[in-house]
Amino acid sequence: MVKAKIAVNGYGTIGKRVADGVRAQDDMEVVGVSKTKPNYEAAVARKLGYDIYAPAENMGAFEKAGMPAAGSIEEMLEKSDLVVDCTPGGVGESNKPLYEKIGIKTIWQGGESHTIAGFSFNAASNYEQAVGRNLVRVVSCNTTGLCRAISTIDRALGVNKVRANIARRAVDPNDIKKGPVDAIVLDPVKLPSHHGPDVRSVLPQINITTAALKVPTTEMHIHTVNMEVNSDCTAEDIKKIFSSESRIRFVGNGITATSEIMEVARDLGHRRSDVWENCIWPESIAVNDREFTYFQAIHQEAVTIPENIDAIRAMMQLETDGAKSIEKTNKALGLSNDWIM
Amino acid sequence: MVKAKIAVNGYGTIGKRVADGVRAQDDMEVVGVSKTKPNYEAAVARKLGYDIYAPAENMGAFEKAGMPAAGSIEEMLEKSDLVVDCTPGGVGESNKPLYEKIGIKTIWQGGESHTIAGFSFNAASNYEQAVGRNLVRVVSCNTTGLCRAISTIDRALGVNKVRANIARRAVDPNDIKKGPVDAIVLDPVKLPSHHGPDVRSVLPQINITTAALKVPTTEMHIHTVNMEVNSDCTAEDIKKIFSSESRIRFVGNGITATSEIMEVARDLGHRRSDVWENCIWPESIAVNDREFTYFQAIHQEAVTIPENIDAIRAMMQLETDGAKSIEKTNKALGLSNDWIM
Repeated sequence: MVKAKIAVNGYGTIGKRVADGVRAQDDMEVVGVSKTKPNYEAAVARKLGYDIYAPAENMGAFEKAGMPAAGSIEEMLEKSDLVVDCTPGGVGESNKPLYEKIGIKTIWQGGESHTIAGFSFNAASNYEQAVGRNLVRVVSCNTTGLCRAISTIDRALGVNKVRANIARRAVDPNDIKKGPVDAIVLDPVKLPSHHGPDVRSVLPQINITTAALKVPTTEMHIHTVNMEVNSDCTAEDIKKIFSSESRIRFVGNGITATSEIMEVARDLGHRRSDVWENCIWPESIAVNDREFTYFQAIHQEAVTIPENIDAIRAMMQLETDGAKSIEKTNKALGLSNDWIM
Repeated sequence: MVKAKIAVNGYGTIGKRVADGVRAQDDMEVVGVSKTKPNYEAAVARKLGYDIYAPAENMGAFEKAGMPAAGSIEEMLEKSDLVVDCTPGGVGESNKPLYEKIGIKTIWQGGESHTIAGFSFNAASNYEQAVGRNLVRVVSCNTTGLCRAISTIDRALGVNKVRANIARRAVDPNDIKKGPVDAIVLDPVKLPSHHGPDVRSVLPQINITTAALKVPTTEMHIHTVNMEVNSDCTAEDIKKIFSSESRIRFVGNGITATSEIMEVARDLGHRRSDVWENCIWPESIAVNDREFTYFQAIHQEAVTIPENIDAIRAMMQLETDGAKSIEKTNKALGLSNDWIM
């Protein structure tokens, strides 16, 4: 079988994980990853065996730093079937003309707007619609977490209304110069936050609004989700429905904080302590007529990675059945329901 | 006029503010404050001119530390008309037999259960019902903030349902040994949190549930409040209704975080940088049919202080009209609508 050739443009929080995720699959391979500067992350990428491509004008700097680039970014794209753009939010837009010039299939991340690709992706929600597409946007971590849970409940009970409140990690752990040290930041003041409309880019039938607060922590968001459904249900019903979705994991056993989930991931030897699933506390599910509320934690660095892999598989028509792609991706990345949480 | 004689039992975060608050009124006076140990807070109380009373068995320690107590706690209570119990949550319960023995009017704080007094107080919601009562519980900061906003809207439009999400400051600023450094803690996992039922101890007609997360910050909580009302309304209507309540203040002018509100309070020279009002962002009010959402910040150290003063005034029958007591308290404490926020 010829493997799909994947370029990863941008090797930061998401790019490094997409590259490792692609490498873990048997039907796709990494052509290379791009870095703009020969910094510590470039050195690690090199050590992991990735070919590094650089902007043509910066190749001298890589040479000088003793880690020569394998070529320019344009050269990387020319050798590839599909590029996953993992550059910072907004930068992906400026790369579009280059991708169009080369005529390469492209995945953007949730930091770009829906219109950049005209299609927003979440594997559990709309895999089949992505099959064979040339342009796809994988929605952000918060939107991914919401879509997974909402589409699961919507299929089982029908969802009438969702009101979700998000406590956002302020910055990623290696983002040493940003973030509130001791404050709760309204993000933004004007309601709703962008997450609700963004969920509708994947699930247009859902009545949803969201509000987000930024808090001084670096790992994981917490969503307090309130859903109105169209059928009577109990907390046990909701738990059973959630447990049918492979990218939803339950936590319990005395765990009450994001930091404890991350500690379990570290203890279990997860690479980069990644947690790819929505972490839902079944104990938190509280039903009130046809309305229920619950807590879920979302690991912002990891949760969109399996979605990127599935998007590649759909666009390259390596698999037309979403359930099969999801199962294959989960297995290769190491998602499992064995966690003792 | 004979002033009402007030004992403050417990001189921590709330007790020190209640003492200063009572002292600022012209119809009541502080008999004394109690401390269990002769520590730095006792030294400050002494410097501020308060008589310090101690448990009989600890009076020697105060003598030894060069700050002799004015007497035992029992002696303080015997000289007083009313005691405001500001001991840590749960400790107030164990003081009840002593208060009963002396036969003194008592105010407890929100850390105790509703049953301790059989009546829970919020000035804007039920001042008149407290007139002449012997036992009153002033609800906690979060419940106070919710009651103020909900009773204001309920009077104007009728409230059908409230769903509020609370991001709680982890610890008070001087609480140096507690709190998550870098995590979001579910507080508690089981939903709803106690705040919803607690609001119903003041406003029994309101359908409300709440969820709370503890985040690594020390000053102010943020509530994301969703209310369903019984009449059509616009964001302008809601703003106008909120502006009719003297203990609700609007913030704007680019303020997007709790830390910025506290900075304004410091800049304006507020004692201890206290903010007694609900701080509501009018820009955040978003209406969706007969439902609206908004953000409010609550200064956990300060927000219940004017309520304690009003409770004293009602119980001592110094004023039978709630609106008049509220106005008097606001003026004496320095609440004003002049803040440029």
